[in-house]
This record gives sequence, structure tokens and C-alpha cells, in this order.
Amino acid sequence: MTTDHVTKDHKEPANVFSDKQVAEKSELARHFLDSRTRLNENVDKADNFLVKRFYNLDHNTYLEGALPAKYKELMGLVASACLRCDDCISHHVIQSYRLGVTRAEQEEAINVALVVGGSIVIPHMRRAYELLGELYSA
Amino acid sequence: MTTDHVTKDHKEPANVFSDKQVAEKSELARHFLDSRTRLNENVDKADNFLVKRFYNLDHNTYLEGALPAKYKELMGLVASACLRCDDCISHHVIQSYRLGVTRAEQEEAINVALVVGGSIVIPHMRRAYELLGELYSA
Amino acid sequence: MTTDHVTKDHKEPANVFSDKQVAEKSELARHFLDSRTRLNENVDKADNFLVKRFYNLDHNTYLEGALPAKYKELMGLVASACLRCDDCISHHVIQSYRLGVTRAEQEEAINVALVVGGSIVIPHMRRAYELLGELYSA
Amino acid sequence: MTTDHVTKDHKEPANVFSDKQVAEKSELARHFLDSRTRLNENVDKADNFLVKRFYNLDHNTYLEGALPAKYKELMGLVASACLRCDDCISHHVIQSYRLGVTRAEQEEAINVALVVGGSIVIPHMRRAYELLGELYSA
Amino acid sequence: MTTDHVTKDHKEPANVFSDKQVAEKSELARHFLDSRTRLNENVDKADNFLVKRFYNLDHNTYLEGALPAKYKELMGLVASACLRCDDCISHHVIQSYRLGVTRAEQEEAINVALVVGGSIVIPHMRRAYELLGELYSA
Amino acid sequence: MTTDHVTKDHKEPANVFSDKQVAEKSELARHFLDSRTRLNENVDKADNFLVKRFYNLDHNTYLEGALPAKYKELMGLVASACLRCDDCISHHVIQSYRLGVTRAEQEEAINVALVVGGSIVIPHMRRAYELLGELYSA
Repeated sequence: MTTDHVTKDHKEPANVFSDKQVAEKSELARHFLDSRTRLNENVDKADNFLVKRFYNLDHNTYLEGALPAKYKELMGLVASACLRCDDCISHHVIQSYRLGVTRAEQEEAINVALVVGGSIVIPHMRRAYELLGELYSA
Repeated sequence: MTTDHVTKDHKEPANVFSDKQVAEKSELARHFLDSRTRLNENVDKADNFLVKRFYNLDHNTYLEGALPAKYKELMGLVASACLRCDDCISHHVIQSYRLGVTRAEQEEAINVALVVGGSIVIPHMRRAYELLGELYSA
Repeated sequence: MTTDHVTKDHKEPANVFSDKQVAEKSELARHFLDSRTRLNENVDKADNFLVKRFYNLDHNTYLEGALPAKYKELMGLVASACLRCDDCISHHVIQSYRLGVTRAEQEEAINVALVVGGSIVIPHMRRAYELLGELYSA
Repeated sequence: MTTDHVTKDHKEPANVFSDKQVAEKSELARHFLDSRTRLNENVDKADNFLVKRFYNLDHNTYLEGALPAKYKELMGLVASACLRCDDCISHHVIQSYRLGVTRAEQEEAINVALVVGGSIVIPHMRRAYELLGELYSA
Repeated sequence: MTTDHVTKDHKEPANVFSDKQVAEKSELARHFLDSRTRLNENVDKADNFLVKRFYNLDHNTYLEGALPAKYKELMGLVASACLRCDDCISHHVIQSYRLGVTRAEQEEAINVALVVGGSIVIPHMRRAYELLGELYSA
Repeated sequence: MTTDHVTKDHKEPANVFSDKQVAEKSELARHFLDSRTRLNENVDKADNFLVKRFYNLDHNTYLEGALPAKYKELMGLVASACLRCDDCISHHVIQSYRLGVTRAEQEEAINVALVVGGSIVIPHMRRAYELLGELYSA
């Protein structure tokens, strides 16, 4: 994901933690990140023009802008939980954590998804809480 | 899940089988129940007010009422299959079984989900039939 | 919709009310039924083999069987509300009414959909309650 | 919607605009609010215990808490747009506006929904922009 | 929607009919196109960078490429019907018609959506058939 | 799946590769096919009339007809990716491959699903690319 299309009003957010630190803290996160890296290699090799464009657009959506990046990551988390995609939930939980979001903030975002999306969200919430437990352990 | 909010018109249904009996009869059911128990421990520890309220509301929805509890469990099964949530399907198949629902009744409920939700339901139906096979084996 | 494929174990349910009675009681129901009749004329004229097969399969799913037809109509209502299709909700509310389902039973089925599907179901529930109000008025 | 269950850590957000001011500024908003009020009367009259519980839970989800209420309204907007519910979108656009959210912030939230949910969100985005145009007109 | 990012391997498809001809043939199509034009004016005025990028990406997806444009429009139709978006269905039915797709081909694409997506697709199929009836009338 | 209901206008497509050849080429495909065969045995044993009817209808939908079978398989792939069903995606990727669809054609179909369905499709796209990598390896 390149950032060459970032406009003047948007900039990369400042991470509090690196992917490496996340992987060291949480086994679930490490497993997710490793698996994604491996699978993305196939996608990168294919070098599909529209896929690359979509990845770029996706990246730019979560930059600092009118809304702080951390709230947009939490919005991505809510959307992912409502649409019930475990990989997407893991991604946004980890990105939010990296941006300094607290556990209480993550839980409140998940509560929005739970109320909007209903009990069908519960199994995904359970797995998200397991990841939260590892990331925010003392 | 407490039941302190149960109203006068609604009461706990009488189970024919306990979770323990279900787990002894079906390995798939035991695996599901054990995994859920383990994951719910994280959720319980978090002690999130709104999550507890949602769990309570969810519990009360399936009590005996104007509709017999067993038909509401089957409705939960249909909803879960249409929204394609394997964990939710397992939960409602097991609860229906515990309330004395026959295999033929479970299959007819799944048929409603199949016709309303389409072929996208088929992979979930296959896994549900595997669970039905274990639960209703002679 | 022909019923030539009905098997020996399944039979047409006995309606308490006709479509005509429903249309006389509720303006919302009449509007829905008229609009569907008009639109189905285009579909019938097209005489598409697979569409006819699907309509037939759909019809047979809700016949009396291991489960009473009225509970399968309510399952169709739950599925429709979870998947948020107003026309489908109207159809199953009306069919359930025709089979003698009480208003309290309809509300409990909608409650299952509300809890499983979340607040996103609420706008559809509001419109369903408007139809229930007309159908079950004294 | 009563607020008697609000916990000590959560409180009602301070609105910048009342529903009345919103209805005076935007015809689309007034139409939505009037229609909802009319339909909710049927729901209120039914006095269904679980529906009232769900409304209460829904209300409490968006209170000031670990996350500012305005960001939770925007999360509700993202969820509504991803799940493609026009009434829910209108509700959260209006609530966000009432809490002082800027137009640029609303657009960025909708962008998250667009990227997560895809082009299927576009027709709903178009209608949301029409409402934004009226609410934020000079 | 600009086409400046069209790559060397992709080119604009050759339409058999213009939007104007479509609007003259079908009142439903004209109503849809007029309404979309009006609503898009608000979106264009907002000049949101990411929305414009998404529109561009969306446009490029349906160009002539490894797959003929007409089959990609029909794939867009199938996706729209499965995700149950009437505006999206109208768009892809019209674009397919403009590219010379026959009515029989449109019906077969809709059949794929019906079988994959289930009876919940039927109300959308009925409305699509109404549009097909106008577009393909003698 | 019997084909006794195939109409005169529709016929079985000619496969370039057998299931056996697919399983020998790709470990992911073999795993998917073996697992499906095993699970379908339970379904077959149940001998549910409506399930068999649905399987038959499903089979007939993808036959050669007004549209070449290969494009209908790709439409099934787009629908499956939009509705995010990994098993359904694997099935249609394999069927398309068996009918001689090129990798570039599969990627373009997946691009339609990505744009219509949004970033929530990405994790499924990654897994589809892994399968494509095995099937189309030199």
C-alpha cells in the first residue's frame, strides 16, 4: 500500500505501537498478521491494477483528516462487526490499539455494533474480546 | 445470564436434555459448548454493562410466552441460517434439541432458511446436518 | 403457483381468512396485494422456467408438515425481518394472519428478529406494527 | 425512551440543536421525523415489553461515555450505511448534526462506510448527501 | 466520472443505445436516470476527494477487459440483486441493455441471483421484470 | 444432483478438467472437495425432499443457456464474494476453472465483487487468490 495519493489535508497517523510490538504482545494478533502477510503475497504477485487502486483508496480512508484517525479505525471496527468479518475486526482492533485507543473505547465501539447488528454479532464480539484481552493485558 | 427480569407472562422452558447430556451425545456440540464457555469467560470478566443488558434481553426473548419456546428457538435457527452464522446455528440447533424438537422439525426450519436465504445457506446447512446427525443418532 | 409437486406428507394449510377479506380489513394489505398482483403479471408473462420452479419450491416450503404451517409462516417473517425486506415482511404477516396467528404471536416472532438482527430491524418493525394495527383492529 | 437505567458513568449528551430546529431547517428531516413519530405511536400503543427494553438499550448505547457521544452517532451512521438502511442513516445524520458534528466529519464517516461497504452504498450516500445539503445550508 | 485512469488494456465499451434513447423507451428508466442525475448534483458539488476516487474506480471496473463489458455489467446486476439494491439493479439492467444484452440473457443473470440469494430476491426481481418489460417491448 | 429436469434449451456444459484433475493440481481444492463430499453424505442420507429440489434447481441454473455456462459460474463467484461465503467462492472458482475460464477472467470477476461489496470482500479475495495461485500454477 503506497501513500503517494495522500492529499495535502490528510496525513499518516502517528502510531503508538508498531506491528512488531503488537505481535509480541498478542499471539492472536501475531497469527492474524502473519497469515495476512502470507496471503497478501499472492495478491501482490498478481499485480492487479484495480486491486492496487482499491488498496490505496482503502488506505487513504483512514488517514488523519476532519476526523481523527483513531475514530475512523473504530468506525471501521463497527462496520466490520456489523458485517461480521472476523479478519476485518482483528485488523481494526489492532490498528485502533496501535493508535492509542483504550480498551474502554474499543468496547463502546463494539457495543454500537452489537446494538445495531444484533445478537448475530455476539460470536464475533466474543472473539474480539479474546484479542482485546491479550492486547490490553497488564 | 440472570433471569431476574422475567415478566409474569414469560417463564423458563423445561429442557428435556441438559447441556451435559448434549455434550456427551455429540462431539461437535461439546466442542462448540466448550469453546463458547471459554470465550464467554473473557466477556464476563470485562463486565460491560451494555453487553450484560444485551445478554439478558437475548435470554428473555426465547422464554415460554405467546409462542412456545421451542418454536422461538427454531425461529432463531432460521434467522441464524439466513444471516449465515455457524455458531448461532449450532446454538439454536442444540437449544431446540434440548427442548424436545424432532429432527424432522429442525429440517423443516432449515428449509425455510434455505428458500428465503438461497444457495448461500447450503454450506451452513451441510454443517448443521452434521450436527443433527450426531444429536439424533440412535 | 401450482401445487402438483406437493408430496403425500405435506398439504395445503386451511386459511381462516381469504386474501379478499384481508384486503377489506387493511388498506396497507390491499395496497401490497394489488401491487404484487400487478408486478407478478410481468413475471408470469415472461414464463421463465427456473423462476416458476423457484416459485413452486417456495410455495411447498410453507405447507403443513412436520411443523404446522403457521409456525413456518412466522419463521418466514423472522427471516424477512432479519434480512430487512418490507415486501417479504408484509407477505408473511398477512399469511400468518390468514392462518389464525394471534397478534401476540406475531409480536413475539418480530422480537426474535429484533434481537437477532439488531436496531437495523426497527424501521421495518415500525412498518410491520402499522400493518398489524390494521389487521388486528377490533 | 426512558433513561432510568443510565449508569453513573454515562450521561445524556448536550444537543446544539433541537428536533424542532432540525425540522425547520430541512424538509427531508421534517418528513423523516414526522413519519417516525407517527409510526412509533403504533409501537408505543402495543406496549411490548421486549421492544421497550430494546429501545432503552439502544438509547443508552449512544450516551456520553468512554467515547464522546458524537463519535458514537457517527459510528451508528457508518453501521447504518454499511447495512444500507435509509431511515437509520437519516436518524444518525440528524443526531450527529444536533450534537455539533461538522459536514466534513459526516462526509468522512460516510467515506468509511463507502469503502467498507462498496458501491452498493452509493445510492444511500446520494440520499444522505441530499439531507446533508439541507442541514448544512448557509 | 472521468476516464483518465483507464489503462492501456481496458477501454470504454461501445454502447448500442444512449441514455437518452433508454429514457425515451422506458418511463421507469427515465425516472431512475432523472432522479440519479438530480441526486448526483449534490455529490458533485461536495467535491469529496475519496468519493471521486471511488466513482473513478467503479467506472473502470466495468470497462472492456479480459471479460467483455456486457458480462461484467450482468455480474454487477447479479451482485446488486443478491445484495438487494433496487437502484443498483436498475443501473445494471439499463447498462446491460445499452450494451446490447438480450432479455433472455438478463433473465438468466437474474436467475443466478435468485438461486444464490433466495426468495428474498423475489420482490426486487419483480421490479426488475417491470423495467425489462418496458426496455424490451416491441 | 440429477439432471432429469433439464429443459430442451439447456444442456450440461463441457468441462475442460475433471474434479479429479482439479484435486491433483491444488491441495486447497482437494481439501474443499473432500470436505464437501463428506458433508454432503449426511445431507444425502437425510433424503429431504425440498433440499433435493433446491439442489436440482441450483444445478440447472448454471447450465449452458442464453448465457454461456462459464459466465454464469463467474456470476455465481461474484454473488458468493459479495455475500462473503468462502465455500461458495471456492466452488465457483473451481467450476469456472473446469470450464476453461482464464485467471485474468477470474480476477476481473472478483474485481466486480470487490467494488460492489467493498473492503469487507478483501479477506475472501485473499483466500480466493491463494486458490487461483494453485489452480493456475505452471
